[in-house]
Amino acid sequence: MNKPLSTQPYKGVRDFYPADCAVQQYIFDTWSETAERFGYERYDASILEPSALYKAKGAENAELVNDQTYTFTDRGEREVTLRPEMTPTVARMIAGKSRELAWPARWYSIPNLFRYERAQRGRLREHWQLNVDMFGESGYASDVEVIQLAHQIFLDFGATPDMFEILINNRATMNHAYAALGIDDADMVTAITRLNDRKDKITDAEYLTALIQITTDEPLAHEIKTMIESPDPGDNQVVTALRDLGITNVRIDRSLARGFDYYTGTIFEFKDTHPDNNRSLLGGGRYDNLTSLFEGEAVTGIGFGFGDVTMRDFLETHDLLPDSITHTAPVIALLTMEPAHNLPAMQLAQNIRATGLSCSVDTTSRKIGKKIATAANSNVIYIITVGEDEVASGTYTMKHLETGQDVTGSLQDLLGHLTSLVE
Amino acid sequence: MNKPLSTQPYKGVRDFYPADCAVQQYIFDTWSETAERFGYERYDASILEPSALYKAKGAENAELVNDQTYTFTDRGEREVTLRPEMTPTVARMIAGKSRELAWPARWYSIPNLFRYERAQRGRLREHWQLNVDMFGESGYASDVEVIQLAHQIFLDFGATPDMFEILINNRATMNHAYAALGIDDADMVTAITRLNDRKDKITDAEYLTALIQITTDEPLAHEIKTMIESPDPGDNQVVTALRDLGITNVRIDRSLARGFDYYTGTIFEFKDTHPDNNRSLLGGGRYDNLTSLFEGEAVTGIGFGFGDVTMRDFLETHDLLPDSITHTAPVIALLTMEPAHNLPAMQLAQNIRATGLSCSVDTTSRKIGKKIATAANSNVIYIITVGEDEVASGTYTMKHLETGQDVTGSLQDLLGHLTSLVE
Repeated sequence: MNKPLSTQPYKGVRDFYPADCAVQQYIFDTWSETAERFGYERYDASILEPSALYKAKGAENAELVNDQTYTFTDRGEREVTLRPEMTPTVARMIAGKSRELAWPARWYSIPNLFRYERAQRGRLREHWQLNVDMFGESGYASDVEVIQLAHQIFLDFGATPDMFEILINNRATMNHAYAALGIDDADMVTAITRLNDRKDKITDAEYLTALIQITTDEPLAHEIKTMIESPDPGDNQVVTALRDLGITNVRIDRSLARGFDYYTGTIFEFKDTHPDNNRSLLGGGRYDNLTSLFEGEAVTGIGFGFGDVTMRDFLETHDLLPDSITHTAPVIALLTMEPAHNLPAMQLAQNIRATGLSCSVDTTSRKIGKKIATAANSNVIYIITVGEDEVASGTYTMKHLETGQDVTGSLQDLLGHLTSLVE
Repeated sequence: MNKPLSTQPYKGVRDFYPADCAVQQYIFDTWSETAERFGYERYDASILEPSALYKAKGAENAELVNDQTYTFTDRGEREVTLRPEMTPTVARMIAGKSRELAWPARWYSIPNLFRYERAQRGRLREHWQLNVDMFGESGYASDVEVIQLAHQIFLDFGATPDMFEILINNRATMNHAYAALGIDDADMVTAITRLNDRKDKITDAEYLTALIQITTDEPLAHEIKTMIESPDPGDNQVVTALRDLGITNVRIDRSLARGFDYYTGTIFEFKDTHPDNNRSLLGGGRYDNLTSLFEGEAVTGIGFGFGDVTMRDFLETHDLLPDSITHTAPVIALLTMEPAHNLPAMQLAQNIRATGLSCSVDTTSRKIGKKIATAANSNVIYIITVGEDEVASGTYTMKHLETGQDVTGSLQDLLGHLTSLVE
């Protein structure tokens, strides 16, 4: 006999037992509903992608792929990667049907993504992420729409605008601002942008020192710092339009950098305002070279990604997870007195389910008291015991487990009562 | 400049563009609704599992794992497999919380599964599969319930009982039947069971010849064939109960074998009755040693798996996919005359969405005629043009694209009209 196997999942991934799976499904369902209300269509793809999709951008990228993703060679000598992000996949799909698609294309997906992380506390190797993008339209109204959609997601989870704020910046505007300060060296702009990306993790003095190192020009470094830290000038048409749409928790933040590679225009980030969870919730922006790795015309896009762990942390921090989510048990449990009553109870259950209500039958050989206790310990709402008298008379008593109130009547009566509750 | 990348997905996996994704979601949603109506709770897990979970059953199994699954070694020297089936995962999860769970546990999941298949036409390397199981209860009523649930799935897709049939057999009954014929050699029983598994793929003569080879006893081979082919004796309590529950498309088939390893009691298979799709749709059975690889007590279970490709083939064969599934476009499209009307249109859209209806705004710079054509080519149901007059008067005309009928009025009027359609 071998040593028993461990019941632990693979390092860095999660099991979703029913209570956790219910929360996950609640998040996914709410994401889908909001996106579809804005006219976004769902797409999906396999987690398996040719590694070339990630390595194509050059040697540095190829190294990152080997180092930080799950990449392996299949028995057909094909290099295959578990997707670390969805953008390359959606770029591939958009490029593959660019002549057939109606523009703009409004698409969303909820993929799981994989990263090879050194095993450490809290770093997950698999997570899910809502991806929302509009492709093929560059007017500022599309930037507004995508940010409005992200904002609506928070409202649809019951959040109020004081719980989060929206920071906006624009890559093109920033390039003009650097040019106005006499900076025309692209490498220097890149270095400053990368520094800005971690500005809120360092002190003011450290930030200035780093700017002086980059520019080797102390007065210029001060000018850059002043420009970056200047208050919201209110001159951004996306921000103006969002405010006109009633979205007030939005401001321009010139230090907002959002990574570096993709973005060419508007960039944005949603941040939690709660002191216990003071961090970025989601980020996105406009990219103009989405399909550059493929044949055909360039396609512009604007979109964002929103992780499931971040979403759940936000909901828990602000106590926005409804209690009812844990109610994954059926609404009604039928409890049989004796095995002889199992079949009549299953017939009864079938009639209850036909109304759309969920119903299970406890057909175990346990005593009725034990069956009631089991139902009470789950999240079942009503119980109906089924014994000799009930089967003979066709009259049943349905008890609300929490209030103790009961209703007695024919199946018809009970169904009427239940249906009136559903409506 | 590098050669452009291919837009094809990885070999053997599928892209789900919106029209296909909508069908997939329809299938998943219907599966979930049926399972939850029976009181089954959803669970999930990562596709990444320690390879030991599949290799633990012995050397033969370890070879199959290396040969037929995606298995690789991560940089922490851990062997990891992309799950080829869900049963080992759910066994791990059940064993991991066997002391906390309430019994019986009714669980379902819709995992994607991976198999390393030689690349050949129609053989997919990734598919999705509904898994439904009841754990911890061995009474025949639980077998009945699980089969009843599978039957209900077909009804919930609009199928009628003539479109499929349910074949039932029982491993324990079969062992008794072999013993009654004097066969007590377990290896011979295994060989006959394996032969039965492909009985409908060979001729009667081939079947008899194979039985003679196995038994080296021609009279015995004839006796076995007669027993296996005997008509439904009607002595199976699961079948009797299903018939009492109104499920009539069920019969005992003693040749039913359903693979070999897991099952110990009832086994069942649903088959399509359509001559164009004459094949197995789903299969399942009872297994009594689910958690034997882990520490703790043995847990019994009964369940089935149902693949997404098989489901879709059945629905297409019987023309059961509703036309409305392709309607993944929003219900209403607002078309702006000029960019100046984008913001008022986005405000209007926001009010429409607040009623729960889906709505998009065409904010492109295209001419209005082009915008109408684009909406008509999609599956949008209503259009509302938004121009100077509409914005000034607050009066809009909403046109039904298919019937050409229109309604004119304030936003309030239109919302009233739309809400009455939803109710």
